[in-house]
Parts: sequence; C-alpha cells; structure tokens
Amino acid sequence: MPAIHLQKISTRAPKGLNKEKIKAKTTKLLEELDDLQNLLYAESKHAVLVVVQGMDGSGKDGLVRDVFGKLNPQGVQVRSYKVPTAEELAHDFLWRIHEHAPAKGMIQIFNRSHYEDIIVTRVHKWCNDKQAKERMKAINDFEELLAKHNGTHILKFYLHLSPEEQQIRLQERIKDPKKQWKYNEKDFEEAKLWKNYMKMYEDCFNHCNKQPWKIIPADQNWYKDHLITTALHSLLKGLNMQYPGLKK
Amino acid sequence: MPAIHLQKISTRAPKGLNKEKIKAKTTKLLEELDDLQNLLYAESKHAVLVVVQGMDGSGKDGLVRDVFGKLNPQGVQVRSYKVPTAEELAHDFLWRIHEHAPAKGMIQIFNRSHYEDIIVTRVHKWCNDKQAKERMKAINDFEELLAKHNGTHILKFYLHLSPEEQQIRLQERIKDPKKQWKYNEKDFEEAKLWKNYMKMYEDCFNHCNKQPWKIIPADQNWYKDHLITTALHSLLKGLNMQYPGLKK
Repeated sequence: MPAIHLQKISTRAPKGLNKEKIKAKTTKLLEELDDLQNLLYAESKHAVLVVVQGMDGSGKDGLVRDVFGKLNPQGVQVRSYKVPTAEELAHDFLWRIHEHAPAKGMIQIFNRSHYEDIIVTRVHKWCNDKQAKERMKAINDFEELLAKHNGTHILKFYLHLSPEEQQIRLQERIKDPKKQWKYNEKDFEEAKLWKNYMKMYEDCFNHCNKQPWKIIPADQNWYKDHLITTALHSLLKGLNMQYPGLKK
Repeated sequence: MPAIHLQKISTRAPKGLNKEKIKAKTTKLLEELDDLQNLLYAESKHAVLVVVQGMDGSGKDGLVRDVFGKLNPQGVQVRSYKVPTAEELAHDFLWRIHEHAPAKGMIQIFNRSHYEDIIVTRVHKWCNDKQAKERMKAINDFEELLAKHNGTHILKFYLHLSPEEQQIRLQERIKDPKKQWKYNEKDFEEAKLWKNYMKMYEDCFNHCNKQPWKIIPADQNWYKDHLITTALHSLLKGLNMQYPGLKK
C-alpha cells in the first residue's frame, strides 16, 4: 500500500456535488442501516468496531450524534476515551480498550481510542519512538485478535480537517453559547502543534493499516457524515446476514 | 529450548528430601513473602500474574488456599475461570482474561486460565489444530502486551500429577464428606482422556513458552507448595524493589 500523505488529500468534497442530494442519500442510507443493524443484532455472528479519530473540532461528537445516534441504541454503544484514570494507567494501555470491545451482534463506537497512545503522547514526547513502535505492534496484534477471534469488523476513520477550518470552529466555541462548554484554551496551544500531529498520524496510518484507515474529508459535515454512513452501510450489506429463524 | 515431555518428568519430590524441613522452609518463605508483597504494593512498579493449570485433583484450589491465602488479600486477587458464560462467548477468548490482568502493585492468580482454550477445547475437538495455532499466537501476543506494556511478570505453573495419584484423589472425593461437594461423575470420564490431555499440554508448553512454564511435581502437596512459594519469592526478591519514601 502506498504511504499516506495527508497534505495530498483534500479536506473537502469534490466540486460539483449537490449538498442537498447527498444529504437525502445519507438519510435513506441511515434508514436502511436501521434494518441492517437489527439483522446484525438478530444474527449475532459479527461484531463491528468503529474507531473515530481526528483533531479538535473535526466533528467527532457531531458524527456520533448525527449518524450513530440514528441507530437503535440497544445495538450501538459509544465509548469516549478521555485522559486515562489512575486505575487505567496502572494497566497496559489496551486494558481499558479491550473491556469495551464489541460483543457479537453489536456496533461499538470509539470516540478517540487506543490510537491516542501513539498520537498525542508522541507529540508531547510522553512516549518515545521505540515505545511507539512497540505500541503499534501491540495494536496490530490486538486488532488481529478482535478480527480473527470474534468476527469483529473494524472501521477506522480519520476525520481529515484543514487547519483553517479548525480555527473557524474553535472560534465558534467562544462565540456560540451552545458551544462554549466545549471551549478549552489549551485547544489553541494544541493547534500550534498541527504539523507534528499530522506527522504522527501519517506514521500511525502507515504502520497500523492491516485493518485499513479511511481518510474522511471533514471540512463539511454533510460530506463527512455521508462517507461514514456509506462505509458502515456497505460493510453491513456485504456480510450477507440472515435472520436465524426459529430456534431449534 | 528442548521440548517438554511430561512422561520424562517425575511427579514426585526427589528421594531423601525431609518433608518436615521443607515445610518449615516454606513457612519461612511465606513470612518473607508477606513483606515482599507489601513492598510490591507500595512501590507499584511491577505487576505479577500467576497462572495455575493442572488436571482435576492436581491441587489448584489447595494451592490458592495454602500458599496465596497466606498473603495480604489487599494485594492479591484470585480469579477462577470456569466454563465461559454466554456474554464471554460473544467476545474473543481473551476478553474475560484481560479484564482481570493485574494492576501495577498487584499479584493476580488465575486458577485455570486462557490456556483452557487450547487444552480442554482441543481434547474435545471444539477447537481444531488451525484454530489452536491461531489462539497460541494470540496468547503469545497477549502475554507480550502484559509483560512489555505494564511491567507484568508472568509465572506459569503446571501442576504435574500422576494418573495414579489422580485416581486416589478422585476416590477421596466420594468418601470424604468434606470433599464430596467437589465430586463430579464427569471427572472420571475426563480422566480416561489423560493421554490426549498430556499431548495438548505438551503442545502448549512448546508453543507458548516465551513466558516460560514451570512443571511442578504435584503428587505431594508439601513439595508442590514449596516449589511455588520459592518461585514467587525469588521473583519478587529479584526485582530489587524500594519503598518509594515520602511523595514529593
């Protein structure tokens, strides 16, 4: 697989796409997804793990609300990973992750994930290159465990935002009373480390890609939501699931 | 490392050992272990995982009571693994194991473990050779994760019992009112599969030995207890732990 260079990938939808048509398509796909998710739950042969990563302001929370929030919560669980607790830090970095791995029949969303342990930690040099390489191997082994030993399909999305759009969104958090609770002075400090973040993300994509990453242009939420809905829809559609019928 | 052949390894203590002297030594080591375990807890740099496997009647429960039961329960946790629940079966086979991986500062005992997934399952052909090989790889990766990413020291003990001694102990379960609750008709059926069990254990020792197995002669409990106490004692002693002093 050729190396991923984020600078060469657009953060916007291709020109000429009709926003309203795309949104209508997304709505239709979400309706179908509701059925597919029910089938996934009924059949209980496959598990789905959706990993969502992206810079501050890239729309992770919005994605959870506007896409995954449309599905039956009985079959969809969301886990948002924050700074590790003392108890979590007293274990290996995948301990808190494994706990929330999806059971067969379930869709599990990780809003941030084990990938923070080779991104933010490297940018701030809490983790050196050698440790990062060891963590990447552990991550690859772990994802293989989920895939091979529990029929888990892993979708990994990077919400690819431009630094300019990020600035606009961070500023909105200051002005919009509904968004002020999200404002964090430190986000502007982190934004200055943009290039370093991109470097660490690229390194991650190129070393942890056996379960492949999808780079999602994220400057426009309608396009981002569409791509992710489509990806989940075509994954489930491709599983050729069957309702199990009456138990014998 | 040369392959392990269980038939070539004695299930009894070497002749000439003085049982009473050995028991006195064990008692002394256990007293010292109490201090060492306190130091492990205070320092909280290392974690210890003790995996105990063995045939029915090999003395796993007795070991937990007579050796680990002597230590401060605040720093020692025991997890006995039984037949997996429906929820456990809906996850990869290491999910229920990882949950109980020890935090730094703790000693975790597994009375039976993830190794059942390549022993009893293979004997009964619920798991074929290809799956077993994949599970062995997953186990090796998992133990590497614990060792490398959380400073976990893994002691793996196989309680090596003779089939003759097993028969004696299973018969005792019928006669002794204090042991009758342990009696299970099926144990005699399992005992007939002895050779097959030994073959699967040997395969396991030879493929999952990066964190090495210790084969413990188990026909005499005093000797078994002594060897395991000694192994844990010398592990902790060798860590050169220090009380951390006053927090700065």
